[in-house]
Amino acid sequence: MPLYLIGLNHEYITKKALEYIKSSDLIIIDSYTMPNSDKIVSDVLNIAKEKKVIIANRRMLEDESSDVLNIAKEKKVGIIIPGDPLIATTHASIVIDAKIKNIDVEIINGISGICMTKSLSGLQYYKYGKTLTIPGPWRNVKAYSLLFNLYANLCIKAHTLLLFDIDDNKKTLDASIGIKTILELNNELKLYSYLEKLLGILIHAGDKNMFIGNSLRNLLDDANIEEPYSLVIPSNLHSEEEKYLKYVLGIKSEALENHKKYIKEDFCKYMQYLSNYI
Amino acid sequence: MPLYLIGLNHEYITKKALEYIKSSDLIIIDSYTMPNSDKIVSDVLNIAKEKKVIIANRRMLEDESSDVLNIAKEKKVGIIIPGDPLIATTHASIVIDAKIKNIDVEIINGISGICMTKSLSGLQYYKYGKTLTIPGPWRNVKAYSLLFNLYANLCIKAHTLLLFDIDDNKKTLDASIGIKTILELNNELKLYSYLEKLLGILIHAGDKNMFIGNSLRNLLDDANIEEPYSLVIPSNLHSEEEKYLKYVLGIKSEALENHKKYIKEDFCKYMQYLSNYI
Repeated sequence: MPLYLIGLNHEYITKKALEYIKSSDLIIIDSYTMPNSDKIVSDVLNIAKEKKVIIANRRMLEDESSDVLNIAKEKKVGIIIPGDPLIATTHASIVIDAKIKNIDVEIINGISGICMTKSLSGLQYYKYGKTLTIPGPWRNVKAYSLLFNLYANLCIKAHTLLLFDIDDNKKTLDASIGIKTILELNNELKLYSYLEKLLGILIHAGDKNMFIGNSLRNLLDDANIEEPYSLVIPSNLHSEEEKYLKYVLGIKSEALENHKKYIKEDFCKYMQYLSNYI
Repeated sequence: MPLYLIGLNHEYITKKALEYIKSSDLIIIDSYTMPNSDKIVSDVLNIAKEKKVIIANRRMLEDESSDVLNIAKEKKVGIIIPGDPLIATTHASIVIDAKIKNIDVEIINGISGICMTKSLSGLQYYKYGKTLTIPGPWRNVKAYSLLFNLYANLCIKAHTLLLFDIDDNKKTLDASIGIKTILELNNELKLYSYLEKLLGILIHAGDKNMFIGNSLRNLLDDANIEEPYSLVIPSNLHSEEEKYLKYVLGIKSEALENHKKYIKEDFCKYMQYLSNYI
């Protein structure tokens, strides 16, 4: 019997996801990788009707995944994953384990919040570099590798999408605390002192999309945005991108002009220097 | 009246796309950014029923977009775009022009083939760097900036997704000619001589997904894959990624071992050198 990994986005339910949920014998919902998974749970319950639905915690789909695979030998098991099943989640390992045990796996792609955010930013997709996560204070780690990768993206003139960490109670890291984490470590390590002048764009991709764009420094005071949100730090802007930020996202000229002024730096040297820290 | 940019993926039609197509007065289909847009056209005709549907060429949505915007002042115009409306297409400018003319725009995201491909590769999404396009011989350009960006991604240890160029007759660049373009220019410029030993994975994301993975050199002889296809050149592999490539995508151990051996290089120096060419 096969295992289905079904991507589901509350705003954008696909016909294919509907069909696969309906044809599963048992449905398991990953409820721990997304803060607003309540909507996904209610979507699935509405579609699944009288079928058995289990709301899984992280342990069930990671440490105890062999139990799930044993069931998949006899029944069609559909695992519902918010967004896309293999983007920004840890579900590759269950696919590997299934294949090793000779269980068929089908991946039903979904609309990933990460891809939506990049698209809605109006920045050219092919100029995006590595996607990063800002760690919460509960991790007790210094964000050295985050800073290394941010400067690495800037070094190759790539835009950066930054996600905010989620704690065990599904609480998302506060946006201004996240930005502060970056700027404080940057100051402590005496890296590019004008980093705080670069543009940051907070984006909420949802029923009604929201955008707040300003210098990273000014965003500390105005980072009030609906969950889920993420942050984009652009690299060098093409004139078309600049127009989009100005006319479509409503970003002030002053913030744009400052960004263009302070983005003209050799960021590779900071990447080089940070490589000693990671 | 608003303008709707509606993303549509033939495999994954969303409920939201259906609703917006049904509520548009006039529907325009972008048929020129995707080779297999015939399926999209027939999907839309099925959904739109007796509504007016125009199949647009590039000129209509680029040079003559002000005509479209004039109609959008009086009618609800839905522009159908394969995949996601703002990923890997040139539709940002029509959004900018609409906003300047005070016309409301709604972006209906769709499942982008690019995001699907990254997801299906089993490589970690956050390790992907810039997405590149391999130019076809009909462009009459040397692929210097492609090579620069490939080495830039390798320098910061980022995976690369490479798209294949599409000509004016919607014919996709042959996969082996594309790979040859990279390897030949690499030799001509005397860059990393073992580039051809690195792994390349050709991926077709569709009704039935397909994968062909081997060294770039060996892919020249075995690059027969259904359209649309794209190529992934991984950077350093995490052990979990390696397992995925081996057990899920079926890539031979020899190709993986060679990749791990030849990926251990300082690629930043080649990026540095290539910066003289672009």
